[in-house]
Amino acid sequence: MYKKLKQRVLDANLLLPKHGLITFTWGNVSEIDREHQVVAIKPSGVEYDNMKVEDIVVVDMEGNVVEGSLKPSSDLMTHLAFYKAWPQVHGVVHTHSRWATSFAQAGYGIPAFGTTQADYFYGEIPCTRKMTNDEIHGNYELETGNVIIETFADKKLNPVDVPAVLVHSHGPFAWGNDAFDAVHNAVVMEECAAMAFTTLQLHQGKADVMQQELLDKHFKRKHGPNAYYGQGK
Amino acid sequence: MYKKLKQRVLDANLLLPKHGLITFTWGNVSEIDREHQVVAIKPSGVEYDNMKVEDIVVVDMEGNVVEGSLKPSSDLMTHLAFYKAWPQVHGVVHTHSRWATSFAQAGYGIPAFGTTQADYFYGEIPCTRKMTNDEIHGNYELETGNVIIETFADKKLNPVDVPAVLVHSHGPFAWGNDAFDAVHNAVVMEECAAMAFTTLQLHQGKADVMQQELLDKHFKRKHGPNAYYGQGK
Amino acid sequence: MYKKLKQRVLDANLLLPKHGLITFTWGNVSEIDREHQVVAIKPSGVEYDNMKVEDIVVVDMEGNVVEGSLKPSSDLMTHLAFYKAWPQVHGVVHTHSRWATSFAQAGYGIPAFGTTQADYFYGEIPCTRKMTNDEIHGNYELETGNVIIETFADKKLNPVDVPAVLVHSHGPFAWGNDAFDAVHNAVVMEECAAMAFTTLQLHQGKADVMQQELLDKHFKRKHGPNAYYGQGK
Amino acid sequence: MYKKLKQRVLDANLLLPKHGLITFTWGNVSEIDREHQVVAIKPSGVEYDNMKVEDIVVVDMEGNVVEGSLKPSSDLMTHLAFYKAWPQVHGVVHTHSRWATSFAQAGYGIPAFGTTQADYFYGEIPCTRKMTNDEIHGNYELETGNVIIETFADKKLNPVDVPAVLVHSHGPFAWGNDAFDAVHNAVVMEECAAMAFTTLQLHQGKADVMQQELLDKHFKRKHGPNAYYGQGK
Repeated sequence: MYKKLKQRVLDANLLLPKHGLITFTWGNVSEIDREHQVVAIKPSGVEYDNMKVEDIVVVDMEGNVVEGSLKPSSDLMTHLAFYKAWPQVHGVVHTHSRWATSFAQAGYGIPAFGTTQADYFYGEIPCTRKMTNDEIHGNYELETGNVIIETFADKKLNPVDVPAVLVHSHGPFAWGNDAFDAVHNAVVMEECAAMAFTTLQLHQGKADVMQQELLDKHFKRKHGPNAYYGQGK
Repeated sequence: MYKKLKQRVLDANLLLPKHGLITFTWGNVSEIDREHQVVAIKPSGVEYDNMKVEDIVVVDMEGNVVEGSLKPSSDLMTHLAFYKAWPQVHGVVHTHSRWATSFAQAGYGIPAFGTTQADYFYGEIPCTRKMTNDEIHGNYELETGNVIIETFADKKLNPVDVPAVLVHSHGPFAWGNDAFDAVHNAVVMEECAAMAFTTLQLHQGKADVMQQELLDKHFKRKHGPNAYYGQGK
Repeated sequence: MYKKLKQRVLDANLLLPKHGLITFTWGNVSEIDREHQVVAIKPSGVEYDNMKVEDIVVVDMEGNVVEGSLKPSSDLMTHLAFYKAWPQVHGVVHTHSRWATSFAQAGYGIPAFGTTQADYFYGEIPCTRKMTNDEIHGNYELETGNVIIETFADKKLNPVDVPAVLVHSHGPFAWGNDAFDAVHNAVVMEECAAMAFTTLQLHQGKADVMQQELLDKHFKRKHGPNAYYGQGK
Repeated sequence: MYKKLKQRVLDANLLLPKHGLITFTWGNVSEIDREHQVVAIKPSGVEYDNMKVEDIVVVDMEGNVVEGSLKPSSDLMTHLAFYKAWPQVHGVVHTHSRWATSFAQAGYGIPAFGTTQADYFYGEIPCTRKMTNDEIHGNYELETGNVIIETFADKKLNPVDVPAVLVHSHGPFAWGNDAFDAVHNAVVMEECAAMAFTTLQLHQGKADVMQQELLDKHFKRKHGPNAYYGQGK
């Protein structure tokens, strides 16, 4: 029934190896159909090389399988947490991409050092706090989503303005208007992480973030009512 | 009418992904036809994979579209500023290439540490000052060009001797005798930035620049009246 | 006679260049047939591009050639030491992969900084002590195996829980349930080494390792009786 | 007349882009025919993509062109200096490969940190002193060769035991039994430089070199009368 949605999610998943964001099966993309309240997601632990459209799993908002014979990604409950908390989000991606994961392991957000980041992210890409033992021993994947949502609430961040996060000691999640937009943001985050690392090293770990005015200028050049980048919609 | 110019600009743009200088659409190349006082440039926000010669936009020196149905690159006014200020320049390229952008984010020029840089750049590739709020809120892309031209004037640099620059908190621009030469210089700058980073790290951030005599020797071996590198012209 | 075993070992060896773990011939994979007490291993110093199934050498547990006309890898005795000491191990791989070798050269283990490592390794990937002059001048390759086994005994590590090691001033070994699993672990170790380096640099060399609870959670999510990652067995 | 020699030199030059050692035309390989006292070398500034066997230039020991219509590489006199000083050397290569050049720019040799280097180089790959103004303004390319030869004489190094060098503020040269062996050594040097950088960074710039006994063991395992690596000769 959800052939088109599953095809989109398959295609978006296949962009992960194309953009060099994953090793083996370490990544997953999902997209929500808000009309039917279902989410299509990559199956757990399946190789990208042989993945077919019928392998994509469709679940309802509680995670029950609606279509498909494989187990959904073990990160499913994290994806669902986003879709429930943030109605503006329609696609989610998780990877262990090298540079973003290194920042997550360091417990550092990715600072906004330049216009590359400002074109997509309205400031720092934050890193969550460490999870508590209760969260780890409880419904871990759901709690991973909750700690991310808490991070955005605490920092008063709009997930549309900053469509990515790092989970402490773990790795990055990104999201967007659909599955492809989510992957696009994950690619940008990885490139920003690589450049932020080099920028920090050039200053022995203590580089200044960019001017607020330049951040405003670049973000708003591409986003919001006065955007003038690209060919229009 | 400008079919040949547009084809050259398309071909030069396609060298950017070939040399690994860009992610998505983050780069643009232009070339000027000084006889007809027109500039051909990449359209704004269009994917490289599907770009066709008719997508290239031709504009006059004020930025008015002369040929083409798409919007020109949002960086057009920066390109035009170079062509107006520097009659020796016939091609311009802007990218967010990883290593050069990292130096720009750090606010550092790329020091001349060795003959690789000296073969193409007569000394450091400079970084501009930060832009003022007025410049950012005004005609931003034009002011980006102006701050670069100011940097070269302040440092008494000839843009033919140092055919590239870093814009603070943003990224690199390069130029040359034509669009292909500009791209060539952008590739060299990126490689020099990568090596300068490593050289700096080996000295905990404080490496000596190369001898002036060696810089002279290598630059003049390839440039100017006594050049003897290559097969002659 | 051991055609199938040799084909597996050939295929597993060919994964090394595919995953970017080797330069020239700097790597070797073996697998044991415990029923017949023989080990198939890559021949010494042979190029990967032209390796054929008949080039794979089959030896007995003392290293005597049972099948094949080429000399086995010079690291054979190290592989045999593992198979004798650790009955759970059925495949072994040695490479000089860039990031893991850099840690080995520094004499550092790869700390467990995040869930990428925790999904495969139950803690740090240890580095051996330096070998003594007697060990180096004696049966060097056998002693290389012995110093690894000593390291695991001293640290009370189970080679199934931590299926890789770094040999001081040398490089990494990994192992697994079969030759392919060993190569899989070698790829993971290399990625973990790259990310651990970046994590350490972000903290000027002194980053905290991950929480024990998170390490437990991720390792046990994929290994042992309560694993729930993947599609089951 | 020297068709076979030129074909070998062409093939060896084409290995440089294959192994990622060069950008544009920044590299050159030569081989000597000691019987006829001629050297075949890459032409100056010619693109690798279109290089043909007839483009390879054959010169005598004074650098006079014996066969070919193009100008030889501008580094020719450096190559000839090696062939004259070191009768054991039959192939020479120069590149600006990223990691080795970064060490050259820092004025640092590549320390022997592990067995990867010890398998090919009997200790550190040295870096020359800076050249004097007289050397730079004189017969520069010849003097580049002379300063390398001086470095090996001062350090009492045998160019067969350490088949590579870094020229201060410039980049690497390597050599060997023939053009292919020279390129092989250049690839190994580049990999060793990358790993040495990482090893140094892990120790904040001050890592210990490997034990002399381990260096002896690995170098002699592959070189000299008691070598036992590979399939024999």
